[in-house]
Amino acid sequence: MPLSPEQQAEIDAQRSTRQETRRVVSEGMEAHLYTAYPVLDHGFIRVIDYMGDDAAICQAARVSYGRGTKSVTNDEGLIRYLMRHWHSTPFEMCEIKLHVKLPVFVARQWIRHRTANVNEYSARYSILDREFYIPAPEHLAAQSVVNNQGRGEALTGDEAQRVLEYLKADSARAYDHYEEMIGQEGQQGLARELARMNLPANIYTQWYWKVDLHNLLHFLRLRADAHAQYEIRVYAEEMCKVVADWVPFAFRAFEDYRMGGATLSSTALDCVRRMLKGEEVTQENSGMSKGEWREFQGVLEG
Amino acid sequence: MPLSPEQQAEIDAQRSTRQETRRVVSEGMEAHLYTAYPVLDHGFIRVIDYMGDDAAICQAARVSYGRGTKSVTNDEGLIRYLMRHWHSTPFEMCEIKLHVKLPVFVARQWIRHRTANVNEYSARYSILDREFYIPAPEHLAAQSVVNNQGRGEALTGDEAQRVLEYLKADSARAYDHYEEMIGQEGQQGLARELARMNLPANIYTQWYWKVDLHNLLHFLRLRADAHAQYEIRVYAEEMCKVVADWVPFAFRAFEDYRMGGATLSSTALDCVRRMLKGEEVTQENSGMSKGEWREFQGVLEG
Amino acid sequence: MPLSPEQQAEIDAQRSTRQETRRVVSEGMEAHLYTAYPVLDHGFIRVIDYMGDDAAICQAARVSYGRGTKSVTNDEGLIRYLMRHWHSTPFEMCEIKLHVKLPVFVARQWIRHRTANVNEYSARYSILDREFYIPAPEHLAAQSVVNNQGRGEALTGDEAQRVLEYLKADSARAYDHYEEMIGQEGQQGLARELARMNLPANIYTQWYWKVDLHNLLHFLRLRADAHAQYEIRVYAEEMCKVVADWVPFAFRAFEDYRMGGATLSSTALDCVRRMLKGEEVTQENSGMSKGEWREFQGVLEG
Amino acid sequence: MPLSPEQQAEIDAQRSTRQETRRVVSEGMEAHLYTAYPVLDHGFIRVIDYMGDDAAICQAARVSYGRGTKSVTNDEGLIRYLMRHWHSTPFEMCEIKLHVKLPVFVARQWIRHRTANVNEYSARYSILDREFYIPAPEHLAAQSVVNNQGRGEALTGDEAQRVLEYLKADSARAYDHYEEMIGQEGQQGLARELARMNLPANIYTQWYWKVDLHNLLHFLRLRADAHAQYEIRVYAEEMCKVVADWVPFAFRAFEDYRMGGATLSSTALDCVRRMLKGEEVTQENSGMSKGEWREFQGVLEG
Repeated sequence: MPLSPEQQAEIDAQRSTRQETRRVVSEGMEAHLYTAYPVLDHGFIRVIDYMGDDAAICQAARVSYGRGTKSVTNDEGLIRYLMRHWHSTPFEMCEIKLHVKLPVFVARQWIRHRTANVNEYSARYSILDREFYIPAPEHLAAQSVVNNQGRGEALTGDEAQRVLEYLKADSARAYDHYEEMIGQEGQQGLARELARMNLPANIYTQWYWKVDLHNLLHFLRLRADAHAQYEIRVYAEEMCKVVADWVPFAFRAFEDYRMGGATLSSTALDCVRRMLKGEEVTQENSGMSKGEWREFQGVLEG
Repeated sequence: MPLSPEQQAEIDAQRSTRQETRRVVSEGMEAHLYTAYPVLDHGFIRVIDYMGDDAAICQAARVSYGRGTKSVTNDEGLIRYLMRHWHSTPFEMCEIKLHVKLPVFVARQWIRHRTANVNEYSARYSILDREFYIPAPEHLAAQSVVNNQGRGEALTGDEAQRVLEYLKADSARAYDHYEEMIGQEGQQGLARELARMNLPANIYTQWYWKVDLHNLLHFLRLRADAHAQYEIRVYAEEMCKVVADWVPFAFRAFEDYRMGGATLSSTALDCVRRMLKGEEVTQENSGMSKGEWREFQGVLEG
Repeated sequence: MPLSPEQQAEIDAQRSTRQETRRVVSEGMEAHLYTAYPVLDHGFIRVIDYMGDDAAICQAARVSYGRGTKSVTNDEGLIRYLMRHWHSTPFEMCEIKLHVKLPVFVARQWIRHRTANVNEYSARYSILDREFYIPAPEHLAAQSVVNNQGRGEALTGDEAQRVLEYLKADSARAYDHYEEMIGQEGQQGLARELARMNLPANIYTQWYWKVDLHNLLHFLRLRADAHAQYEIRVYAEEMCKVVADWVPFAFRAFEDYRMGGATLSSTALDCVRRMLKGEEVTQENSGMSKGEWREFQGVLEG
Repeated sequence: MPLSPEQQAEIDAQRSTRQETRRVVSEGMEAHLYTAYPVLDHGFIRVIDYMGDDAAICQAARVSYGRGTKSVTNDEGLIRYLMRHWHSTPFEMCEIKLHVKLPVFVARQWIRHRTANVNEYSARYSILDREFYIPAPEHLAAQSVVNNQGRGEALTGDEAQRVLEYLKADSARAYDHYEEMIGQEGQQGLARELARMNLPANIYTQWYWKVDLHNLLHFLRLRADAHAQYEIRVYAEEMCKVVADWVPFAFRAFEDYRMGGATLSSTALDCVRRMLKGEEVTQENSGMSKGEWREFQGVLEG
């Protein structure tokens, strides 16, 4: 369970307090505020704050385009137009702040998205908790044989057993030694900033992460994608549910134009045109490499 | 007057609507929401939305520093510590969205602050209003004789009169021709994206500008400074009043450590040390150039 | 002519100097260095410096110790793979620095691309030159009747004549008054930072602009596009020629996957699949709005 | 030793190749190119590429057509002026690309500097090497008793011995199990992206890191500072040597105004003024907290 009773009580207290504001309120988002949604074995995401809603996207767009947006009569139509034409700045006018608890190896991928504000728990100042990500057996995937960065089937039997034992035992031992090195009362102890180096990448850390909606959607497109590593994808999927309630028009447009869409190259578009004219197009006469052709077939099959 | 009666009515309607939220509320900021504060002859700033308050800065800092912040017992002390030690990320956890109306030549300076989100009124789509900045006579400053980018005394008499007449007449004529080129009903008219090129840099534009508190304070340090151009400084000063009510602890720390503070070079610190020991330090034996010494004297005199 | 004889002599001197370096050299780019390529009536672009080449993109993708070239075939294949899968960071490992002279209204669009470094000629410190963009008659486009931001046919006859006269006369008068306000020798004169506000948006400015290849390609995708305003598109097109010689593999991949490609929504992909199965798909049964359907038809027709 | 004979041979080959270029060349930097300077027990930094020199900073500040050098004296004076007045954009016109090998816990601090381009060795695709940072005995520092993030004296005797044994044994065992989990020929093996989670934070990773000079100096100010963690400070110090040879004027100005300088608050400046007038200023009558006063005394003592 990711939260202690004290933490849950703090969250309940936050959730029960309501105040008046003149600001735009997203009722869909208010329902999520502060609640910790579990992810993996000890992680969670929870929304700490937000700014704006679907109407705020349109309001900002109408500053830009002024009378030019009059023809688009409804907000959903305008949002779809903006998404389709890559007008990203109105989506930047919404902001979200999340509290996330996640394994360090996931944090290392996540932080590569630079356009965000982050405050991470510091292992220089503070002592990390004894919490490690141990995959559920069905996620103990083998290395893919067709893709350098992919996963194959789950390991089974003795091999799975052995892996789980290594992960558990090595984490536990590393943490025991971390604690010993830091020292107990009365002892001097190794500096925390050094002791932490003994801890493996499946230990949990946590941070506040603040990002605008445009950059969040970019993150979700990459990380909620089927090719993303499972352990970050489950965070992205949990965030998708929150965003769908926060800005429903923007999220629906995102699903249609980004998540479910595909970018076709000039060569691929040409193949589509030839196919629609009834021509037989094969990899050999397509102008694509084998890899491209395989991906193109994937798009056509849906 | 910067607002039409319709615009004022819209603002009044926004201000009179209050809803419940679970989010952090800054009462000081709620009082400012949506109100248009006049700047220059036709400009304004008004807060459209905000996220966070002083407590949110501390909350984020305490995620980072965890138990390490226990020793700093109060929020103001913690905020002063963060400001003094250039820990900027907790300040990034607050966000503000402003609607600003400003002359184009001011907008051109402003936009150089890149870490912000902007939606500007588009003169490709829409027709600009006939509103130009004409300086008040006391701000018709002469070119400084000591500083390439500074201002001297205000012009007076005939010279002032002539300047004002040029600015007014040229703006009016440029706008007349802009309108004529765009064409009236029934005419074809030049494309707006071309016609706008006839308009001078004192025409007003407007935008939504969203920025985090850290970057806003950086903007204010540069633009509320005595060396900033008067026409952008008045915007910065108006924003300072709002920020002081939004995050009073952070703003007070900012005034002490940034606005009222000064960075001394290694050489300057050495001079201070020598002076405190009773040594007579002059420009000649200071190791500073004349310009540096003059600035150093300015700091010592306060 | 955009350059004075002194400026041309400085450029010639730079071009004639060659020095030895251990760095990666792009021969295609060396040929362009410093040359000012004219754009519009008084503008230009010229490359001041660059870092990296196609091989450097591959080297970074492989985080390798050596030059990173396995073979030319491999390099082009790798670059195409990176482009297709939106792996943008290796493209960020190349950098270009340009000197650009451009009208202010173009500069105002350009600067919205925030991930770049800019040093603009300062009209606070310095006096701007008497150079204004006056469109060639064939580019005096009328406002589009179907598209709020588009252009229609060129104006002709009296209307074209009148527009040209306004642009020329207003520019000339504004500059005369600018000069008069600044003052001549012996006079005090209005501060430059104020006098500049009288100048219209078709006056030329100039800047140094430095950007990484990933962000440059993003800029070119938007600004070399047929929907971009003509006056910025001609700059983008001129830059495309330079980039094609600098990083030929990356540029070819960019043309195929970005410039000539198209992003289809989930709904559009579904329509393609139905069409390939022989179904008659119309706007009515497509699930698309009229605007989307028109754009989709445009993609299918190529 | 950080490099294999093959890697060293690749580097030697790169260093021995010289080509002609029209670009600005920094002779001081050419001497460093590609050489791997050792840091910690297995790490290094090496310059892969660079753009610009001191003259390029001045050229950008002047937005000039030629090389921008009026005279060496002028250039150094201009650079000092730019640094003193926080004119950061001309420094952004220089760029450096480094190849760095560093422990993961150092990489996690480093990556927080967001304005940079990074390509890291991917443990999803590739297998990490068996290389771990084990501190030299004199760097096995105890936790500071006065400062939550600081270090005290080095541990000695049995405690030091025990710590070293833990770090070595846990690293070795974690890597053995990592290898076993990945599997040998013929076995399926756990996906690399999962197996890596067993590896501790003292394992080495490597990346290409590209940054402009302004942001590099900001990094160096924070990370070459006495309060930075030793393990990142040694990287910063090694980079300082390279930068001093690359852009000697800029680096000297940086040392004077940034590294050796100090920012005094409004309150602190007031105390200096009172002291210079002969007043006895103590913590009690200074208006500063005890912590601030202690830091202020530190500045005055130098």
